[in-house]
Amino acid sequence: MNYAFAERVNHMESSAIREILKVAESPDVISLAGGLPAPELFPIQEIQEAYNHVLGANDPSVLQYSTTEGYLPLREDIAEKMKEKGMHVSPDNILLTNGSQQGLDLIAKLFINPGDLIAVEDPTYLGAIQTFYSYQANFLTVPTDKEGINVDALETAIKLQQPKLIYLTPTYKNPTGVTLSLERRQHLAKILAKYNIPLIEDDPYGELRYSGPVIQPVKSFDTAERIIYLGTFSKTIAPGLRLGWVVASKEIIAKLVLAKQGTDLHTGTLLQRTTHYYLNNSQIEKHIETIRQEYGHRRDIMLKELKANFSGEVSWTEPSGGMFLWVSLPEHFNTVSLLPKAVEAKVAYVPGAPFYAKGGGLNTLRLNFSNSSPLQIQEGIKRLAQLFNK
Amino acid sequence: MNYAFAERVNHMESSAIREILKVAESPDVISLAGGLPAPELFPIQEIQEAYNHVLGANDPSVLQYSTTEGYLPLREDIAEKMKEKGMHVSPDNILLTNGSQQGLDLIAKLFINPGDLIAVEDPTYLGAIQTFYSYQANFLTVPTDKEGINVDALETAIKLQQPKLIYLTPTYKNPTGVTLSLERRQHLAKILAKYNIPLIEDDPYGELRYSGPVIQPVKSFDTAERIIYLGTFSKTIAPGLRLGWVVASKEIIAKLVLAKQGTDLHTGTLLQRTTHYYLNNSQIEKHIETIRQEYGHRRDIMLKELKANFSGEVSWTEPSGGMFLWVSLPEHFNTVSLLPKAVEAKVAYVPGAPFYAKGGGLNTLRLNFSNSSPLQIQEGIKRLAQLFNK
Repeated sequence: MNYAFAERVNHMESSAIREILKVAESPDVISLAGGLPAPELFPIQEIQEAYNHVLGANDPSVLQYSTTEGYLPLREDIAEKMKEKGMHVSPDNILLTNGSQQGLDLIAKLFINPGDLIAVEDPTYLGAIQTFYSYQANFLTVPTDKEGINVDALETAIKLQQPKLIYLTPTYKNPTGVTLSLERRQHLAKILAKYNIPLIEDDPYGELRYSGPVIQPVKSFDTAERIIYLGTFSKTIAPGLRLGWVVASKEIIAKLVLAKQGTDLHTGTLLQRTTHYYLNNSQIEKHIETIRQEYGHRRDIMLKELKANFSGEVSWTEPSGGMFLWVSLPEHFNTVSLLPKAVEAKVAYVPGAPFYAKGGGLNTLRLNFSNSSPLQIQEGIKRLAQLFNK
Repeated sequence: MNYAFAERVNHMESSAIREILKVAESPDVISLAGGLPAPELFPIQEIQEAYNHVLGANDPSVLQYSTTEGYLPLREDIAEKMKEKGMHVSPDNILLTNGSQQGLDLIAKLFINPGDLIAVEDPTYLGAIQTFYSYQANFLTVPTDKEGINVDALETAIKLQQPKLIYLTPTYKNPTGVTLSLERRQHLAKILAKYNIPLIEDDPYGELRYSGPVIQPVKSFDTAERIIYLGTFSKTIAPGLRLGWVVASKEIIAKLVLAKQGTDLHTGTLLQRTTHYYLNNSQIEKHIETIRQEYGHRRDIMLKELKANFSGEVSWTEPSGGMFLWVSLPEHFNTVSLLPKAVEAKVAYVPGAPFYAKGGGLNTLRLNFSNSSPLQIQEGIKRLAQLFNK
């Protein structure tokens, strides 16, 4: 049957790279490609205890339909957590979502008409490009450097092109690991207020700090309520739960609740009840510290190995946190066409090009250090060096 | 701040009725309004056992990111279940979703351009109207009678107005409890093939049969692959899990996977693994039989009480299954304006009007019999009779 799909389906692409990376899932390939946390660090026993408690308390409402906003005591937990990060919020400013990806999708649903312009960093999170693209958005890309997005360039772009929305991952960002400096955060908040433009601050990695100072989210400087903040438990508890949240003005939350109602009624009741129990009855701070220690160690190993194996023509970022770093090869390299050769050599990475909303970056690539053991990282970088140093 | 929302936000409405019904949540109001299963029947102990097993098996992948399509062994379970219902499907025809509401939303995303026409029964499921409306669809309503949608009227509407898509709940439907007859199912499948038009068969209540013959889903007659079937565990296991599935051609599933990827990456890994374990290690058939016995009993009580309390001017449906029946009052009644009086009299229902996509039905109302005890049902109908027999 020939289906008459909606216009937006032309904007949903199956990625060729995704297909190649499926091949890379074989156990003899060292994959530095994915964006997975280390499963051996998941607090599986504490999660089991939480499910046991919540399901054993003789309260069947944990399995019943519940409100779209989300479980109030969990929203209270999150509001407290957000206050520690300098945000002035109440539970009414919070909506629970199926991971922060759903937050992104609901915000896109709320703001984007076909043809609307979204300002993004160059490069930016691939999953955000895909979501915005599926709502038929156009992109305006803003250059970034070691201190994150160039805020002056962003201001010029706002003045000249009036984007509808800005999307940013300011902290230990995917894909480069770069963090927006404190000065730029303050400057950015002023610009948002001045031009009355909303910004999505996507912050999945903020808790994963290995060195450098604590930098509060941009939203903590946002006295004018221009920022919609996305948080998630995917990197601090586990991604397979699918639990995230949106922090925004009450007016935006009310609209997001309507959008979510039509989308999937609400996020799982049992999941929210269990997560609330887990947050209040386990040592999550200690658990996050364990993750920090281990990922920080893996980052150090990767940086050391890159230094030992690559010459001055190859450069890379040195992130203070997160799960990724970013490698730039000399201009004549094409990491997309080299990927099958890498997989043949039993190592995988993600080519940088798909992270550029408007093309470019063919000589770049993203490496993940959270999901491989130190030994795998050492061997993986050696295999990449053999490929790229030819 | 004034937000420049997308056009579609004008099509998302907060319902005044929903606000009134929030008041009706107080414990002294007998609510025949909601669409909730009976929580006292949830298999909470078996679900606890399943979580314990899955989380206790020393396999952290149950908490990791997983594929958008869903856990293969669970898709295999569902494919088997669908075969028993006469559908010729493999796991490749199945996508796991966050309840069947998400299936609806993803299908709308896939098919609906602003202004597209959707054919629906009159009345139809309110949540479907809201979802389609949020994609800026227009509606074409087709009359129904005791045997379900009038298939000849549907064919005429297809010829004259060429809708993009048809949405139907053929079995024990929400809101009326009516079931499409076998003859009409066969006829409908032929019409879909002839006019090459896709149909969504929403089947949340199919397992809840209390009397009358087993009638296979329309999709079992759909040799031309025109039907997208929506299933859910919300009524057979528990709605607070949020787990449903789509059955469709491989081409449609591939597109839905792309749409879901941008929407929320995937449905919870732990939830899917646990549900797979539950389905294979508990007596779900016996559990469903328990639900059937109890809901069937509650339906009988409600029908008996209606007969005892209302005269010939009031009529109602006599459903063979599901969770709802439908009451029609004399034309001069307005169930929307009467609702606050009902709540004052400590009984709640859902007015029928919102279930009509293009207006009408002011003298109708929906009653739920699954979520109240027999005593509450008896007392609730008496209170309604006092109100409506004045």
